Amino acid sequence: MPENTRTETDSLGTIEIAADRLWGPQTERARRLFRIGSEVFPPTLIRAVGLQKQAAAEANLALGELPADIAEPVIAAAKEVAGNQRDADFPLHVWQTGSGTQTNMNANEVISNRANQMLGQELGSRKPVHPNDHVNRGQSSNDSFPTVMHVAAAEAVTKRLVPGLEVLRAALAKRGEEWDGIVKLGRTHLMDAVPVTLGQEFRAWAMMVEAGIARVQAALPDLLALPQGGTAAGTGLNTHPDFARGFAERMAALTGLPFTAHPNPFVGMGAHDAFVALQGAMNSVAVSLNKIANDVRLLGSGPRSGFSELVIPADGLSSSIMPGKTNPTQSEALTMVCAQVMGNTTTVTVAGTQGHLELNVFKPVIIQAVLQSATLLADAAESFAHNMVEKLEPNRDRIAENVAKSLMLVTALNPRIGYDKAVKIGKTALAENLTLRDAAEKLGFVSPEDFDRWVRPEEMTRPGATLAGG
Amino acid sequence: MPENTRTETDSLGTIEIAADRLWGPQTERARRLFRIGSEVFPPTLIRAVGLQKQAAAEANLALGELPADIAEPVIAAAKEVAGNQRDADFPLHVWQTGSGTQTNMNANEVISNRANQMLGQELGSRKPVHPNDHVNRGQSSNDSFPTVMHVAAAEAVTKRLVPGLEVLRAALAKRGEEWDGIVKLGRTHLMDAVPVTLGQEFRAWAMMVEAGIARVQAALPDLLALPQGGTAAGTGLNTHPDFARGFAERMAALTGLPFTAHPNPFVGMGAHDAFVALQGAMNSVAVSLNKIANDVRLLGSGPRSGFSELVIPADGLSSSIMPGKTNPTQSEALTMVCAQVMGNTTTVTVAGTQGHLELNVFKPVIIQAVLQSATLLADAAESFAHNMVEKLEPNRDRIAENVAKSLMLVTALNPRIGYDKAVKIGKTALAENLTLRDAAEKLGFVSPEDFDRWVRPEEMTRPGATLAGG
Amino acid sequence: MPENTRTETDSLGTIEIAADRLWGPQTERARRLFRIGSEVFPPTLIRAVGLQKQAAAEANLALGELPADIAEPVIAAAKEVAGNQRDADFPLHVWQTGSGTQTNMNANEVISNRANQMLGQELGSRKPVHPNDHVNRGQSSNDSFPTVMHVAAAEAVTKRLVPGLEVLRAALAKRGEEWDGIVKLGRTHLMDAVPVTLGQEFRAWAMMVEAGIARVQAALPDLLALPQGGTAAGTGLNTHPDFARGFAERMAALTGLPFTAHPNPFVGMGAHDAFVALQGAMNSVAVSLNKIANDVRLLGSGPRSGFSELVIPADGLSSSIMPGKTNPTQSEALTMVCAQVMGNTTTVTVAGTQGHLELNVFKPVIIQAVLQSATLLADAAESFAHNMVEKLEPNRDRIAENVAKSLMLVTALNPRIGYDKAVKIGKTALAENLTLRDAAEKLGFVSPEDFDRWVRPEEMTRPGATLAGG
Amino acid sequence: MPENTRTETDSLGTIEIAADRLWGPQTERARRLFRIGSEVFPPTLIRAVGLQKQAAAEANLALGELPADIAEPVIAAAKEVAGNQRDADFPLHVWQTGSGTQTNMNANEVISNRANQMLGQELGSRKPVHPNDHVNRGQSSNDSFPTVMHVAAAEAVTKRLVPGLEVLRAALAKRGEEWDGIVKLGRTHLMDAVPVTLGQEFRAWAMMVEAGIARVQAALPDLLALPQGGTAAGTGLNTHPDFARGFAERMAALTGLPFTAHPNPFVGMGAHDAFVALQGAMNSVAVSLNKIANDVRLLGSGPRSGFSELVIPADGLSSSIMPGKTNPTQSEALTMVCAQVMGNTTTVTVAGTQGHLELNVFKPVIIQAVLQSATLLADAAESFAHNMVEKLEPNRDRIAENVAKSLMLVTALNPRIGYDKAVKIGKTALAENLTLRDAAEKLGFVSPEDFDRWVRPEEMTRPGATLAGG
Repeated sequence: MPENTRTETDSLGTIEIAADRLWGPQTERARRLFRIGSEVFPPTLIRAVGLQKQAAAEANLALGELPADIAEPVIAAAKEVAGNQRDADFPLHVWQTGSGTQTNMNANEVISNRANQMLGQELGSRKPVHPNDHVNRGQSSNDSFPTVMHVAAAEAVTKRLVPGLEVLRAALAKRGEEWDGIVKLGRTHLMDAVPVTLGQEFRAWAMMVEAGIARVQAALPDLLALPQGGTAAGTGLNTHPDFARGFAERMAALTGLPFTAHPNPFVGMGAHDAFVALQGAMNSVAVSLNKIANDVRLLGSGPRSGFSELVIPADGLSSSIMPGKTNPTQSEALTMVCAQVMGNTTTVTVAGTQGHLELNVFKPVIIQAVLQSATLLADAAESFAHNMVEKLEPNRDRIAENVAKSLMLVTALNPRIGYDKAVKIGKTALAENLTLRDAAEKLGFVSPEDFDRWVRPEEMTRPGATLAGG
Repeated sequence: MPENTRTETDSLGTIEIAADRLWGPQTERARRLFRIGSEVFPPTLIRAVGLQKQAAAEANLALGELPADIAEPVIAAAKEVAGNQRDADFPLHVWQTGSGTQTNMNANEVISNRANQMLGQELGSRKPVHPNDHVNRGQSSNDSFPTVMHVAAAEAVTKRLVPGLEVLRAALAKRGEEWDGIVKLGRTHLMDAVPVTLGQEFRAWAMMVEAGIARVQAALPDLLALPQGGTAAGTGLNTHPDFARGFAERMAALTGLPFTAHPNPFVGMGAHDAFVALQGAMNSVAVSLNKIANDVRLLGSGPRSGFSELVIPADGLSSSIMPGKTNPTQSEALTMVCAQVMGNTTTVTVAGTQGHLELNVFKPVIIQAVLQSATLLADAAESFAHNMVEKLEPNRDRIAENVAKSLMLVTALNPRIGYDKAVKIGKTALAENLTLRDAAEKLGFVSPEDFDRWVRPEEMTRPGATLAGG
Repeated sequence: MPENTRTETDSLGTIEIAADRLWGPQTERARRLFRIGSEVFPPTLIRAVGLQKQAAAEANLALGELPADIAEPVIAAAKEVAGNQRDADFPLHVWQTGSGTQTNMNANEVISNRANQMLGQELGSRKPVHPNDHVNRGQSSNDSFPTVMHVAAAEAVTKRLVPGLEVLRAALAKRGEEWDGIVKLGRTHLMDAVPVTLGQEFRAWAMMVEAGIARVQAALPDLLALPQGGTAAGTGLNTHPDFARGFAERMAALTGLPFTAHPNPFVGMGAHDAFVALQGAMNSVAVSLNKIANDVRLLGSGPRSGFSELVIPADGLSSSIMPGKTNPTQSEALTMVCAQVMGNTTTVTVAGTQGHLELNVFKPVIIQAVLQSATLLADAAESFAHNMVEKLEPNRDRIAENVAKSLMLVTALNPRIGYDKAVKIGKTALAENLTLRDAAEKLGFVSPEDFDRWVRPEEMTRPGATLAGG
Repeated sequence: MPENTRTETDSLGTIEIAADRLWGPQTERARRLFRIGSEVFPPTLIRAVGLQKQAAAEANLALGELPADIAEPVIAAAKEVAGNQRDADFPLHVWQTGSGTQTNMNANEVISNRANQMLGQELGSRKPVHPNDHVNRGQSSNDSFPTVMHVAAAEAVTKRLVPGLEVLRAALAKRGEEWDGIVKLGRTHLMDAVPVTLGQEFRAWAMMVEAGIARVQAALPDLLALPQGGTAAGTGLNTHPDFARGFAERMAALTGLPFTAHPNPFVGMGAHDAFVALQGAMNSVAVSLNKIANDVRLLGSGPRSGFSELVIPADGLSSSIMPGKTNPTQSEALTMVCAQVMGNTTTVTVAGTQGHLELNVFKPVIIQAVLQSATLLADAAESFAHNMVEKLEPNRDRIAENVAKSLMLVTALNPRIGYDKAVKIGKTALAENLTLRDAAEKLGFVSPEDFDRWVRPEEMTRPGATLAGG
């Protein structure tokens, strides 16, 4: 306990609170009742808490539900919370009541105290601004906290995740353009296969990221429908009939995102399928990024005895024992992030599954997992773009050598001599360590001249060129 | 081994095959090499295999890549496969090569054998129709099998999953209409809360299913883009430049679904993010359905000492020891299905994650999990609709009794007397086992007349009515 | 509906059943009420159903709870079920009541009908042998079905999974012995690292499998404690006080496994943590096998432009388009199995999580996932052992070449010249494409003679040899 | 960048570091290269980092691999790290190189700088104590970091998780003793079932926790085998042959845990199955705790219109809108923790799956998930014990009432009159709203006197009493 405290009273009795803290008895009780872990909500969530209280007060003011002399200091205090100036007064961990009630009450207490303080009152006076009757006016934790979740997630997706993914997409696409002329070995089943271009590989990765952006954006509309206005159970008890709409308009104005009132607040309070769906989209992004990071790692393996077709940037991070070793450290950071996001998908799924009747009580863990997923994917995508993709170089000598010695060039002969004869050429070349050209001649299936005309790796990277009439 | 066999030869040597089977040496080798489990592909997948071969032959015929005397018997044989008439000739398990190559070769062999048989040739003759040169013309397993996956999943979603969910949505919505006038106790944190209507509960569930349908449909466009035409590595080697487009048109015609050629076949062969995203959408549906099934189970708990607000239908399935016991068996079947779908989501995620370069080699397990998820959700949703939702009855006596004795009706007083006084009324009523009305009077906060005017459960199920001005 | 039926009556009324089927009205009703999917229980589960009924009848006979003229035909009929001779009379899908009640009633009906049939009575006569009063004597579905789960899982683990894993362990260990003298490049971060032996790699894989076997076996004791005797809710109502012990003794005799009565049947009926723990152990096995399969695939990648240190066996399964291509098909089948097992872990976790009070009602999906996991891991491990591990060959030329050109041999110089100088040698060699020996000399750090004495790959594969005093 | 910096040089060039920080250029580069998220390792991990360096220096000193004038300041500095006095000098996020190399180098730099500082040298002097040659002596990140993981996890399990679970087990067991005489309604399928005692319910939960403790402890031996001594790739290159053993002995002495040298360091570096298995055990604990928390929530639902058999403690945390509402907040915090642990299981599984050859490079995310799981489960179990279990009260009136009106008491008649007649009694009572006693008499199956003698709820909570001879 801190040295200087003030005494506050609530329905359970008195409680001591650090004298200089803006929170009140409900927050203080929760601090003591939930000594679990150390995870606190990220600033994006606390910002949304402030925005929610600000938009509510503005809407209530406009509807005459709060007088100006109450609403204005509430708005001013809420702005400080939204500006992340009061994060230190939000001490509660994620592991609290599953409705987020304690964090909503934390906001009610901080904002009422701060508003009263602005009005020259003592902390804990509960007047003229009352935490429940005014800051929480026409609201319940049950609609306010999920609204906060929607706002925080919508901001995280639009302002952080999509831009971060776009950085990676652009970096990959740029490489795809630059290296389109580099013909290289394709690999299927991780085995040598027919030629592709290095540009084709990077363009495919870019398109995967692009598709991921689209999937995440497809999850956005559900987030933009705010359950605010449902109050305690979804019905809208004790709130003005126009509050939900007015609130959404204010929130849209504050954030620049087209929020609307949820057509059925029960759906946004009793369940969080919108977040399960969003997390599912982010899971698909993690799956894509894992593949890209892994493919880069594979092509960069070596430097001498791996695939060795890409040169991993020397980032100055050394092995502690193997001098001068360069590792695909960005691939590793990114794939670890992907593993975390995949785990978060299970967390959100399990948490989404167990809602009961009018209230899903896994709200804090859901939004924590969702915001962590969005942030980590965005950060890791950017880091991978800047520190890996933009610094990769093709190993042109090795690439050329690998194409030249590939047995799978024989595939170009299928349309000319049929599959069964092509098989014999390939097997002969492998068994007798011949070139395909020599094996084809030895078997009497293709003359060297025809071979040179028909088997041209650069022609094999597009449709049509190898056909008999091609 | 069967008694009567024929001997066939391929590049590895000779092999005995049951004389009456349409498959060939590649299928036979695979049967022997992968003695793992017992899971075979469902008929929807085999149908798509047939459709893929039929569309390919039709496209090749139109492009002059196959002569009519070859293409026509191939088409005829493929139709039999698509009609599920040859399922017994597809003996391979899911646990095979990760490209689905063996199932593609199984199709090539069955269709070439059947086509040759139609033309009066012996099984195994490999002529005039050759499994690779003709049935597989302009194709690779690497683009054909994922195309089969896309077709099978698109059909499963549109023809089975969405209609099945729609049955459930409609059944829930109907109940929502019928029971809108029944005012009942709401519950948050599983504790008695403010009133809602039974109709509101069912309408919320209906809307959750509706949102699930939309999420599944949002995953559809990615499925409609077919990687066919990528051939071995995505480049289109050995196929006609117009084959991909022609194929997609034929497939669209055969199925009635607007398939198109994938703009970048690499993406549809090296990765299966489209299926990860679809599975993520189905996962969100499972989460929704689990909640609905669970909520019904809760409201139906009893018959005497549970929530007991819904009467579970007596379906005739008895306890083996407790005579006459009725259980929410449909909720149980549905929630078990949901657990399976959630597990399938992990399977598809793990499988989608580990693709390498030009080929993801977890294709069979991915499509198996996706098709199982779609089928089970559809079947279980319909079963739940017909055998549970349509047969539920409200327990009106209990519902009315629960509302009448609820302490949370005090919430309606907040706008009149403030939160702090309302708390005192509620606590007094609970502690002294009073009605709220008596407690309010005893404390001198609200007169009995005002109480009756202000606290009306039916008015508490919508916004505005309880406000001071309301 | 079949053509020939008999009419049976139960408490809900009459129902038509196919005349030649042994099941009764409860099974028939369940067939119609749960038209969900196509998944039926595997033979190992049906065998355990038979064993459970046999052991129960034997125990009741010994305790005087069943007379011999009833018990004996029940035992005879149960033996047929345990011998998998009556599988066709168990038509119910996994997706039924979550207690497995319908499958237990299916067993009661089949066994009573078969017993009565043996005694010359008509099917459906319910006498002299009654399905509930005799076949289910002293039992409930609620303790019988979880007992069946325990028996089936214990048999699957001991008779199928552990032996299957042991085949793989032995195959890997044998390779570890054979190839211990082959010094090869180690790889960390997938990059060229210091030397190891091929034998070390295989021995490590063998030890991973060995540890997996131990983890699975550690989950076994919980499975051996049978909840039989808890009857309806865990209390043992309506059963003889000695039944639980007598049953466990009979089951131990029938299976050769040391089953005992669960010390607290509530734990084995209301929860299935024993299966969650077992599945967690199998999940760790899947993780191990996935790594092994993937490492083999990496070392076998090529044949010319990959790691190419192992030669993947030519199994005769060809690409449908790339002639003569050999793929690591067994790695693919095995890693797909691992993805399934990991998904099953999520399924079992979700299902285990949602038990309520005296009964977890996700029993069928849990045992289905557990048995599938055990079977697939066992089958795939054996297939991988026989068709991959035993047929691998080292590519000695490539292995030697890779070691020779590795820059990481410089690590051996750390103890002689310090890390910072060793870094300079490595970087110089890479930048100027020199051998380490030449770079060391050029920088004046190590004479060629010292280099040859100090940098000996074969000495680098064990502790101590490279130390200054070594 | 901070205002005051010092310039350091490494193989990549110069870099500015905050003048007062103990870390060096490798840490500083990593800080800049991995700007991903905000997650840092918990103090338990940093403590283990210090212990690892201390034990290594002590072992090297004893073996003559480090002179005393180097080893002693290294040991002194490492002790400060182990005492969590230098946490602020470990700024790196979890999302770094997957080997944990940067955190190992961070430790090497902090300890060498601090040792040199103790010896009167400037920060960054790299002498006399060198980060690689001395602090990292005979070590690699590749064996040091997994050793740190093992130590941190073993401490978390033994010193935090097991004691935390034991608190919960004891609290549940105490309730089980206290309330053993309270006969109450059992529930299966969430429906009214035969009687149990409240003590039986709590004792079953206690035993589930006890079994969870045993499962976690069974995972411990694998953690006690330390891979230290494997150095770069598992072979032990550049370390003294006795170092591994000496290190383990020192670590055992420092921690009081019986650590030993891993028999095959490859297994502990290339894979992390030991952590997958531990996480699987913690997953089973989460499944158990979720059920317990959920069951308590169900029994406490109400206060008036739920199951209402337990009285949830009034913890002073109120609804923000519903005055005086008491919620099962501790159940909610605990089940959210369980959802997180289940997600962590997927994370660890995915991360464990993707190791390549000699090094699994998902080490940081694995240990982060494992330590978070252990801490959260321990904290939440204790919080639930103290704030929920110890404060619960039975609602004796409701409990008695529920038993009295239960229709399932009819089960006691099975052994007397047979199942089919018992069904008729139960159905009649339900349909005609009679007591069972009246229905039994009305049907003429049981006289009131026999009914009173045969149907005694308190006798129904144990085996044998209801049998005909009982």
